[in-house]
Amino acid sequence: MGDSACASATLAPPSIGGGSLLIAWQLKDKNVLIVGGGEVASQRIESILTTDSRITLLAPAKGLHARTKELIDMHPARITYYDRRFSGPAEIHKMDMVLTALDDVNRSREICEMCRTNKVPVNAADIPDLCDFYFGAQIRDGPLQIMISTNGNGPRMAALMKQKINSALSGNEGQAIERVGVLRGQLKERASGVGGALGRKRMKWMSEVCNVWGIDELVQLDDALITKLLDDGWDKGCVPTLDQLKGRQTRKPARQTAPSPDSSQWLLAAASFALGAVCATLALVSRRR
Amino acid sequence: MGDSACASATLAPPSIGGGSLLIAWQLKDKNVLIVGGGEVASQRIESILTTDSRITLLAPAKGLHARTKELIDMHPARITYYDRRFSGPAEIHKMDMVLTALDDVNRSREICEMCRTNKVPVNAADIPDLCDFYFGAQIRDGPLQIMISTNGNGPRMAALMKQKINSALSGNEGQAIERVGVLRGQLKERASGVGGALGRKRMKWMSEVCNVWGIDELVQLDDALITKLLDDGWDKGCVPTLDQLKGRQTRKPARQTAPSPDSSQWLLAAASFALGAVCATLALVSRRR
Repeated sequence: MGDSACASATLAPPSIGGGSLLIAWQLKDKNVLIVGGGEVASQRIESILTTDSRITLLAPAKGLHARTKELIDMHPARITYYDRRFSGPAEIHKMDMVLTALDDVNRSREICEMCRTNKVPVNAADIPDLCDFYFGAQIRDGPLQIMISTNGNGPRMAALMKQKINSALSGNEGQAIERVGVLRGQLKERASGVGGALGRKRMKWMSEVCNVWGIDELVQLDDALITKLLDDGWDKGCVPTLDQLKGRQTRKPARQTAPSPDSSQWLLAAASFALGAVCATLALVSRRR
Repeated sequence: MGDSACASATLAPPSIGGGSLLIAWQLKDKNVLIVGGGEVASQRIESILTTDSRITLLAPAKGLHARTKELIDMHPARITYYDRRFSGPAEIHKMDMVLTALDDVNRSREICEMCRTNKVPVNAADIPDLCDFYFGAQIRDGPLQIMISTNGNGPRMAALMKQKINSALSGNEGQAIERVGVLRGQLKERASGVGGALGRKRMKWMSEVCNVWGIDELVQLDDALITKLLDDGWDKGCVPTLDQLKGRQTRKPARQTAPSPDSSQWLLAAASFALGAVCATLALVSRRR
């Protein structure tokens, strides 16, 4: 899913402006048309499969990429495949989004113009000036989605940024967010009502829970603990820690524990200790002589 | 810019589906209508200012949030402000995107329905089921843009993820990406042509440069170095390191240098050394007695 697929040659100034609007587009129960069956098309299909939309794929079977074939076979309920080319404006009438991934730039351009006339959002692979939107490098962990865009300044840099961000994540974030979502849902049931003072109180309490509990603790919020947290926390107007909830004595606040030294630090300490001991011994022995 | 502003109550399963399509929407020279002038409206204005679009703002002056006022004053060329309410369908006819941030849910709903009829993408703050798209937590560093969405599972978690990702970035990434973009542009001038073998060769060479050079080295790519990199690298079919380009002898590959110990490690080593010395001295002294 390269950033370059629809890359702009102009550079963004570091100040305000010059950027894209990064948004989370909703495609639940919508219709997406993908024209083309090559490698880029397979990447487009994978992007769209992230959402709960219906995909219509138009591409002659002889030109299908192996991955595209695989995806068609894997998701028969999601992808309706037609072994033929794009035939004309009627194809886009019921569509909520159109993606072209064709070698034929002129055909892509024609399809984009039809979409523009019909106000259907469109992305044409490799033809940035025709695109309503670009794709970017994506990270997904359950309900957590992260997108990295370099605004057309190279897919490799987007991939490097993705690596960097991935290595900063523990892998527990998605599950923690999912558990917070469940807690939030149950809090809304317990203290229902839209907006106003209650809405603000709910939001404040939820924020405090997220601040007091770490990611690795939020992951442990099973259904029983959620009920206990609402009983002992929300109902009593406080935010207990995980230890308090589990009935354990807390000796220190969960968020203020010092980081434990890693193995390289232990090695460093041991080596320095030994070096110190050897130096002192040598100094004393030499003085004794 | 809370994730909650348009939050969905349903949870995403960890498998395929259930997610949004994260995209970089293009608004250069487009018209965006923002209805409402409160705090959420001010956040919407700031989001849209990221792009090179024209903003029309409709909101009675008496209800303007301080930040909204400030933004109107700061960006007269970008924001056209009307001291009145939304009057009817004619307001959206020339618009490419509409954002409502109103306390009046019914009015928001009406505006959204007009947008849907006219196929204008729309976001209604706090009414997720009316939204074509959601906002998320955003990071921007020049051409680098990152968006974090929790798919409606809480703005606080999105903010925590933003903190985590921000702390994994050095702050040089945006500038490095900008320099890579300049290099890429000049390479395209030197070896022009769309697609085919040359396109693949360019892409491969650019990838290698990004792999061999670190972020902190890419930042140093000034215009003179870019010319030298193209002369000594692209023209000769190789990827020289920064040191080679600057005419310095490279003793070790730039990417394999061991991380330098930080001050806490020096302190640990010094303390361990001293402790070792003291222990050895005490042991020897006690044996001597």
